[in-house]
Amino acid sequence: MTQQQRQDLDKLLRNGPLDLSGDLAQQRAIFHEVVASAPLPGDVSAQPCQLGGVPVVLVHTPDIDPEHVILYFHGGAYVLGSASDSVGLTADIARRARVRAVSVDYRLAPEHPFPAAVEDAVAAYRALLGQGVAALRIAFVGESAGGGLVAATLVALKDAGLPQPASAAIFSPWADLSVTGASATGKAALDAILTPEALRARARDYLGEGDPATPLASPIFADLTGLPPLLIQVGSHEILLDDAVRLTARAAEHDVPVTLQVWPEAPHVFQAFAAILDDADHALNSAAAFITSHWTT
Amino acid sequence: MTQQQRQDLDKLLRNGPLDLSGDLAQQRAIFHEVVASAPLPGDVSAQPCQLGGVPVVLVHTPDIDPEHVILYFHGGAYVLGSASDSVGLTADIARRARVRAVSVDYRLAPEHPFPAAVEDAVAAYRALLGQGVAALRIAFVGESAGGGLVAATLVALKDAGLPQPASAAIFSPWADLSVTGASATGKAALDAILTPEALRARARDYLGEGDPATPLASPIFADLTGLPPLLIQVGSHEILLDDAVRLTARAAEHDVPVTLQVWPEAPHVFQAFAAILDDADHALNSAAAFITSHWTT
Repeated sequence: MTQQQRQDLDKLLRNGPLDLSGDLAQQRAIFHEVVASAPLPGDVSAQPCQLGGVPVVLVHTPDIDPEHVILYFHGGAYVLGSASDSVGLTADIARRARVRAVSVDYRLAPEHPFPAAVEDAVAAYRALLGQGVAALRIAFVGESAGGGLVAATLVALKDAGLPQPASAAIFSPWADLSVTGASATGKAALDAILTPEALRARARDYLGEGDPATPLASPIFADLTGLPPLLIQVGSHEILLDDAVRLTARAAEHDVPVTLQVWPEAPHVFQAFAAILDDADHALNSAAAFITSHWTT
Repeated sequence: MTQQQRQDLDKLLRNGPLDLSGDLAQQRAIFHEVVASAPLPGDVSAQPCQLGGVPVVLVHTPDIDPEHVILYFHGGAYVLGSASDSVGLTADIARRARVRAVSVDYRLAPEHPFPAAVEDAVAAYRALLGQGVAALRIAFVGESAGGGLVAATLVALKDAGLPQPASAAIFSPWADLSVTGASATGKAALDAILTPEALRARARDYLGEGDPATPLASPIFADLTGLPPLLIQVGSHEILLDDAVRLTARAAEHDVPVTLQVWPEAPHVFQAFAAILDDADHALNSAAAFITSHWTT
């Protein structure tokens, strides 16, 4: 059953129109169209807003705990996607954790290169604290580039003298913009979505001539000491598998409480496909339980 | 609180008499004395027995599910320790999983070098299957060398044409007898129990002139394809941290469902100290939940 679900999803993704290495304007439109084609559940409210001068989308589902909040970071290789495009997944994790979510529309490259995204993430978090939300009532969640951005932002918070949130759940992080993981080639034939060439092109959009190993862009090279409990989820059919493994290893080396969950044969950000993939459902439940378990510690 | 518990445990371990690099006969006696000094709960029954020609200890706690069983592998660097010495931890995980445990007294080096331990593990498992216990009603659990032995045995089962068990929970595995992990030196000052020199000496006892990277002794170099769901737990104050990370990475690369949990500042096989360390309590509950969750899938 699960095997069949994975194969169906793989076929679906391989036949999709998205090509991350293609023309950016075109790919942004395709990305928007692909994700917008999945209708939102009727009970999800998504309201554009501003937070610390940064555009955000406030995501609400019914029966939530008003005291806690997820700060969400969408994916798209730092060059495409938006908080609005990712509302489906944002609402799904928020619903399972029974909290509201604030999804950050950080500025995109190449128009706004590094460190614009990190600056926006820190500004939004700082503003949330300024609204009186205690740090330990906030969990960060991010997917793909947004997952790398979660880790980078946590590091940036230390430099900014801001408190860490309660926890962070990170799905299929892009955490090495130098694209040096063994899985970048080892899993290339199995990855239905990403290619190392596309990631290198998008890394140049984000970093220009900057060092792709700079810690706030590639947190596998950062000092992760002092980060809050991390949950990192990844599929084994991803060229980013080693980004997840190395981010976990780095966190472990730096005495961060970290859990890595690997789903065999699952694709990049498989959590977005909970409607058709049991593993995605289980992974999201596990992430929600992780977030909830860290509210009180 | 937890911080204080960790510091107290660290002091306790550093002041202990065990020195894995010392004279073996002496260290075997000390190891036995140290672990036997912790009295077993009154409701634990530990009965020596034979299984497939291999000595085992049958461990029972009250109110167990008679249909399922943990096959347990003790630690001791392949040269010391015994099923009897490890009954305390064996009973603790078995009690939480509400099943009985069979702890394997595999032969020790240097008297019985590699692959004696793997052969005994396979023989005990084969005999358990022969008693009519279905593979999917068995979970493997192991600590330290016993954790590496769990992974090696799972690989050996493939070669022997035997079915895999339902799952395996692995605590602080010694999974690289070539002792090449960065943590072997990077965490040496923080590890209260093990040194790379002691591990290298014990690896020679086990392997003689054999290759320390041989897959059935060092499963981080094995083909792990087809292994059942794995839970790997490790402390970040261990020279074996990278063994856990690399075993996880290898399993992930080979499409095995694998979860790695890293407990910051915890020592080697911290699960044995649940009486004085909250993290050990949480880790054992998590391992028991993992085992139980895989009975029906």
